[in-house]
Parts: sequence; C-alpha cells; structure tokens
Amino acid sequence: MKIISFATAAGASYGLVSGDGIIDAGKRLPYPGVKQVLEAGALAELAALAGAAPDHALADVTVLPAVPQDRPGGSKVLCVGLNYRAHVAESAGREVPEQPRIFARLADTIIGHGAPLWRPANSTHFDYEGELAVVIGKPGRHIPAARALEHVAAYTIFQDGSVRDYQKHSVTAGKNFPCTGPLGPWLVTADEIPDPAALTLTTRVNGEQRQRTSTGDMILTVQALIEYISAFTPLAPGDVIATGTPEGVAHARKPPPWLVPGDVIEVEISGIGILRNPVIAEPG
Amino acid sequence: MKIISFATAAGASYGLVSGDGIIDAGKRLPYPGVKQVLEAGALAELAALAGAAPDHALADVTVLPAVPQDRPGGSKVLCVGLNYRAHVAESAGREVPEQPRIFARLADTIIGHGAPLWRPANSTHFDYEGELAVVIGKPGRHIPAARALEHVAAYTIFQDGSVRDYQKHSVTAGKNFPCTGPLGPWLVTADEIPDPAALTLTTRVNGEQRQRTSTGDMILTVQALIEYISAFTPLAPGDVIATGTPEGVAHARKPPPWLVPGDVIEVEISGIGILRNPVIAEPG
Repeated sequence: MKIISFATAAGASYGLVSGDGIIDAGKRLPYPGVKQVLEAGALAELAALAGAAPDHALADVTVLPAVPQDRPGGSKVLCVGLNYRAHVAESAGREVPEQPRIFARLADTIIGHGAPLWRPANSTHFDYEGELAVVIGKPGRHIPAARALEHVAAYTIFQDGSVRDYQKHSVTAGKNFPCTGPLGPWLVTADEIPDPAALTLTTRVNGEQRQRTSTGDMILTVQALIEYISAFTPLAPGDVIATGTPEGVAHARKPPPWLVPGDVIEVEISGIGILRNPVIAEPG
Repeated sequence: MKIISFATAAGASYGLVSGDGIIDAGKRLPYPGVKQVLEAGALAELAALAGAAPDHALADVTVLPAVPQDRPGGSKVLCVGLNYRAHVAESAGREVPEQPRIFARLADTIIGHGAPLWRPANSTHFDYEGELAVVIGKPGRHIPAARALEHVAAYTIFQDGSVRDYQKHSVTAGKNFPCTGPLGPWLVTADEIPDPAALTLTTRVNGEQRQRTSTGDMILTVQALIEYISAFTPLAPGDVIATGTPEGVAHARKPPPWLVPGDVIEVEISGIGILRNPVIAEPG
C-alpha cells in the first residue's frame, strides 16, 4: 500500500496511490492525516479503501512530505551519518564510527516530492544525499533489534540536502537550512518490504547517476539503528529515521559538482519509487 | 515582567509572576499560551494585567517549561556547545571553534522548573550544564548582529542535562534523553535585561557551587549567535537559543561527581531567578 500526503485547493489530505490516481482517505476516514492513522493503528482502515475509484490524479496535486511535519511538539526526524563504508572512505578524515552518529532535522527543512529544494543564499556548497527512510508505527523505548521491525510502519525516501561549508561547523547547521530535505514521494507500508536491507538505492542529478548502492551495504542495519536510537529517545508513530547515504556525493568529487538552481535530483529506491525535486535559489 | 507557564487542576495556563503569586493571563487574554502572545506581539497586553490580584500561589502550581513545547511542527531549541573558553579548556581534546557548534534539543527533553530530571536507565554519566537561554520574539532570517537584540523577547535559564557517554557518539544523542533539559523558571522580558553579557550565572548541586561565570565570558555574544543561527535557519517567536555552559561540569572533575537520583540542581542567573530540579531514576 502506498500512502501519499497531498494538498489540493480544498486543503491538505492523504490517501492511497492507485495507478496514476489517489483515493482520498481524508474525506472517508475520521483521521486528519497519516500520522493520526499510525497513532490509531488504523492502517487496515486505509487498506480497506483500496477498491474505491480515485478522486484525484497524481499529476494534479501538490505532494506533501510523506510524513507531514505538523504535529504539536514536532515529529522526530533523526538522521544517521556515516552509515556506508564507501561513504566513510570518501569523507576525508572520517573513520567508521563505533556507534552511529545521529543528528536531528528541524520541521521546516522537510519538503515533499516535487517541491523546490532551496539552494542557500549564503552558500554554494549544496550537496545531495539519497537515503532510505524508516517511518515508525508503534511507539517504543529501549527496543531490542530483534523486535525493531515490529515498530516500523512504512518506508520512504529521504534526500538529506547538505550545506557542506556549514556542516564543517556542526552537522546540525549544515543539515538544517530550510527546504533542503525532501521526504517521499509516499509511504510504502512495511508488509511490501520484508527486508529493508535488500533494496537498491540510486541517486541521479539531471539524469546522471551519482550514487548507487544496496541498502544491504549499511554498516548498521535498520534494526540496529532503531535499537540504538530508542536507547536515548522514545520513538512514536510518524517519527522518521533516515539511514545514511552511500558514496558518490558531490563533496567527494573533484571538482565538486555542487547543486545549482535548475538542477533536478532524483532518488530512486526499488519497491518504493522516485523522489524528484528541482533546485531553486533561496527565495526572498 | 516575569511570565510563567504553569498547570493547575484546571489545565495549562500562563501569567505574570507577582510576588509569591501568579496573575492568570490565560483566563483574561485571548491567547492560549505565551508563544501565541509572542506571535501576536502582545506583550503589552500581558503587562497591562500587572495591577490585578494574583489568582494562584506560586507554590500551588506545576511549573511548565518557560516556553511550552507544544507548537505544531515544534519549536526550535537550539543549543551552542563550547562557548566559554574555560569550558573548552576543561573539555579534553577540544579547541575553541571558529564557528559555533550548534545542536538541537527535541521537545520531549524539555521540562519545567521543579520537574524531575531523569537520570537515564542506561547511563550513569549524567551531567549538568547551566546556561543563559534567549527566547525569540520577532521572526527573522539572516539577522545582523547589530539588530539581533530587537528579535529577543525574553531571557530564561536552561540546564542542558548531558549524558556524556552517549555524547561521545554524537552530541544529538547525548543531549536528547527525555526529561533532561529544564527551561525556566519563567521568562524575564528583555526590557529588564538591557545587556545579556552582564549577568552572573551560578550552578549548584545539593547547595555546593559547581559553576560560576559572567555571561560576559561567552566567546560568541548573544548577538553573534543570533546572527550565525539565523543564517542557516529562520527564527520564530518562542524559539529558544541556549548559549552554552561555562567551566565546572562534572565531566571535567576527578572523579566526576555524576548526578544521581536524589541530587538537586540549581542554576541561578542574576535578574532572572533560580531554576531548580531534582534528579530521579528514569521511570518505567
């Protein structure tokens, strides 16, 4: 089941992707958004809509972040650095960490499929990072790895747009420029992805392949990441874990092909879809 | 003007501290909380309540975080590492950074004055850090230092409770255990603090002084921090910047006097007040 969050002239909603259309769940179910569906444990109610006729064409809606960042108190978007050996190797001065390197993304950095990525006004060192993202469905703390996948509701794609000169100051600064983190295009429920380590991730810039990996090349598995992260912070439905990027980022290429306005970045993961965003100059 | 967020049996509210009492603003003004007052630019409406008779005794309420962390999408609580030279010197292997080291605090780490600090179930390396906190009143991006104080609505105190073994993995992990970040006891509006670099900060554990500094010893001033932070992320009313801790943390003492259940931590800043929290073992 593919669950999409979207907006039309009538406002924000969510629903099932059905071919080139969307079955609008917001007008059929008592939950205002996908996060409330997850909190209610109501994926089956969503799935029961699968026979309905689509209400919207995919091409006609504005796609919102696969998990809208509108929850009081905020959702957690926690990201993992240096989780592929070849990416560690291409990152000068870095070594494979003994424990995962975690950082947080602020809500205003997260955008949907198709939304413009903002190249900062005050930096040209704007880089892409394609990543598998895990969406929590069942709350938990101190979750053992062996039970971690029970807490996963769905998977999606994250593009961890990075401002490399600021990232040298702190990972939090480099990863939190507004509108630099696309999440989507939709959620694919976990029943369709029995093994998150058996996916192929590809990143393309203007159609040219820049990253390609199996998610099986992660240093720490999805299960291990959930165990580690839930050891320091409680996880709740709608929380997102971005699992790190493989080798091939602009930063490691000579000269670095930094992203510029007009570029289009696509991250594709087998079984999930394609997350595509154009780059624009930061407005204002 | 001291603005306190609190809860009684009737629910959450906010108001003016008046002697040992609280003038309840939640029942007199159309704004549900202090963040909405800041967003509306309505501090004058709050100030106009100053003559009223107190509705509650301070001792009778549960004090909430000075900025409640309940805004859709979340407030930003951005913290600065290594912003006092003597603290850098006591931190083995650290040098004075050329640019501030920023990290983010998640909403569920933030607690109010008097609320128990949770010593983690899975770490004994629990440490205190007293800090001056700045609360934004006027939104802004790319704010020059010379105009930064125009964006400050108020000041308060932050105790940046730190889990040092996890902090070695990543600052985000070490600083985001739940219920480790007291913020309060209240907001003191900026008109009462014309110079945030002229305050005295003292941290005590069980009455014993552990930290004492002038906020004038910061490496980067409040103004410089606002300029730097607003260069990567937009600031909005209610956002909090914690400005870093001075020397004297447990981590740098031999042997480290780690916080244990039963300890009481007080952070006092002249002109603001005292933020006091007891330590308990993490529940559950």
